[in-house]
Amino acid sequence: MTAQTMHPDGTAGVVGLVGLGLIGGSLGLDLRARGWDVRGFVRRESTAERARQRGLAGRVSTDPSVLAGCRLVVLALPLDQLLAPDPALLAALPPDAVITDVGSVKAPVLRTWQGIVPRFVASHPMAGTAEAGVEAGVCHLFRGRPWVVTPTPDTDPAALEVVRGLSEAVEARWLLCDPQAHDRAVALISHLPVLVGAALLQAADRGAAAAASGDGPAGDGEVEAEARALVRALASSGFADTTRVGGGNPELGALMARCNREQVLAALASYRRSLDQLEGLLQQERWADLREALAAGQRLRPEFL
Amino acid sequence: MTAQTMHPDGTAGVVGLVGLGLIGGSLGLDLRARGWDVRGFVRRESTAERARQRGLAGRVSTDPSVLAGCRLVVLALPLDQLLAPDPALLAALPPDAVITDVGSVKAPVLRTWQGIVPRFVASHPMAGTAEAGVEAGVCHLFRGRPWVVTPTPDTDPAALEVVRGLSEAVEARWLLCDPQAHDRAVALISHLPVLVGAALLQAADRGAAAAASGDGPAGDGEVEAEARALVRALASSGFADTTRVGGGNPELGALMARCNREQVLAALASYRRSLDQLEGLLQQERWADLREALAAGQRLRPEFL
Repeated sequence: MTAQTMHPDGTAGVVGLVGLGLIGGSLGLDLRARGWDVRGFVRRESTAERARQRGLAGRVSTDPSVLAGCRLVVLALPLDQLLAPDPALLAALPPDAVITDVGSVKAPVLRTWQGIVPRFVASHPMAGTAEAGVEAGVCHLFRGRPWVVTPTPDTDPAALEVVRGLSEAVEARWLLCDPQAHDRAVALISHLPVLVGAALLQAADRGAAAAASGDGPAGDGEVEAEARALVRALASSGFADTTRVGGGNPELGALMARCNREQVLAALASYRRSLDQLEGLLQQERWADLREALAAGQRLRPEFL
Repeated sequence: MTAQTMHPDGTAGVVGLVGLGLIGGSLGLDLRARGWDVRGFVRRESTAERARQRGLAGRVSTDPSVLAGCRLVVLALPLDQLLAPDPALLAALPPDAVITDVGSVKAPVLRTWQGIVPRFVASHPMAGTAEAGVEAGVCHLFRGRPWVVTPTPDTDPAALEVVRGLSEAVEARWLLCDPQAHDRAVALISHLPVLVGAALLQAADRGAAAAASGDGPAGDGEVEAEARALVRALASSGFADTTRVGGGNPELGALMARCNREQVLAALASYRRSLDQLEGLLQQERWADLREALAAGQRLRPEFL
């Protein structure tokens, strides 16, 4: 065995990727470029064929036995599949392997997996593009991006080190935090913006029609159509940016809301308080206070970039 | 007089720009490149000096008499100055000149100016950058962007044609609409996104602190600080995009809200209905309906781009 196929911690090992979409495929490309021995398990033969052509893994199969001998397995699956794991997959996971995932919500993933496999580490590599599927994987997706892990008192420290080696291999920034704190944070900065943007798209469309029909006889189709055309003609880059994630993948948005429901509802409540406050300033014509509230936002934003 | 200094409609004429910030300065650069005779009136001598150095107008003065002889005057001023015009400026406007503005709200501008000057045309060239001031003007700012005009029954048709010539000279897209319809549309697609984004910034900051302090003793500063650091560490391009206009110029945001208060409040009410609906789907765990609502947003968004 050459140095190229050695695991960075010096032990011989192979890594298994369950799913070769955006995250799994990108991991495969980076790890193979580093000389890791990568095995991929996917559901469909057509996906396996394309994954082989793209070189996302050294071996790709629709049979989970391809994972035999893996020292580390990454569950690069959507949240719904993570939370209702395929029994055939469970049966095929090597009993001593470190298992990690890439789900964007951590508490429910831990509840599901900590009882099933002994060496589970919950991960959330925070990187992405608008693409999905076997064509989506790209090199260097994780470079400089946070690789969040949410260990619990039950997490095996040696398993944590194996996942740290994975994050370092793809040049991500290692970030440890509490699972609940993670889920709250992503509700605010990742899941809430989806709902905020989606509501803005709906309001722009419906608000234009409703206001226009208020001008004339109820249900004046022509006036409504004109108003809807006008908002579309006048919308510019500010509207486009504010609604980008709100107009994104609806499956993903609904799944994140479902798996992080409680935290997303808390984030919405917090958002509503902020919006109420701004609206109150408008209603009461407190223009200096409104300017100060907007200035506070202007000062805050660079801290998040 | 050479062809270079002729007005495009064949009559000799000079254009006056009141204000040489982003909009006035950009107009000056484009119109001078087309050979127009451009005069600029600004308040401060330091601005006049810099405007001369940048060539934003052929003559720049802090004396409004520089506007004498102008056939067309563009009031490239902030909304507050448009709505409370300087008496010295009013006295200096040539009585027969066509006067137009560039304000982002049209009904109050019309209420102010239609009673003051006989040949007023309300304009809203919808172009911008994040910059402001005498350094902000750039060439081709208006190319392909909407130049909205909101004529009323009192608008002089010949004056409208003069403004159309201006919009064509800077290669903007001429767009006529009703002033109220304009103000409603910009409330939804331009002013509402500012409030939506500002509320999101506040919610991300306050929501993190509030949720964290709920975990431990009230006012646990360390836990709060950790939670606030975490949302900052995890925020990515989606959060940055959604908050871009919300974290923009607070003066401008507050001014637009003040000058378009009624329409912005109506837009907020429409937005709140959309948000309530999405929140209801989460509360009732209607995941298929949430997915469909997000899918509707995904279908809508390209219509606005």
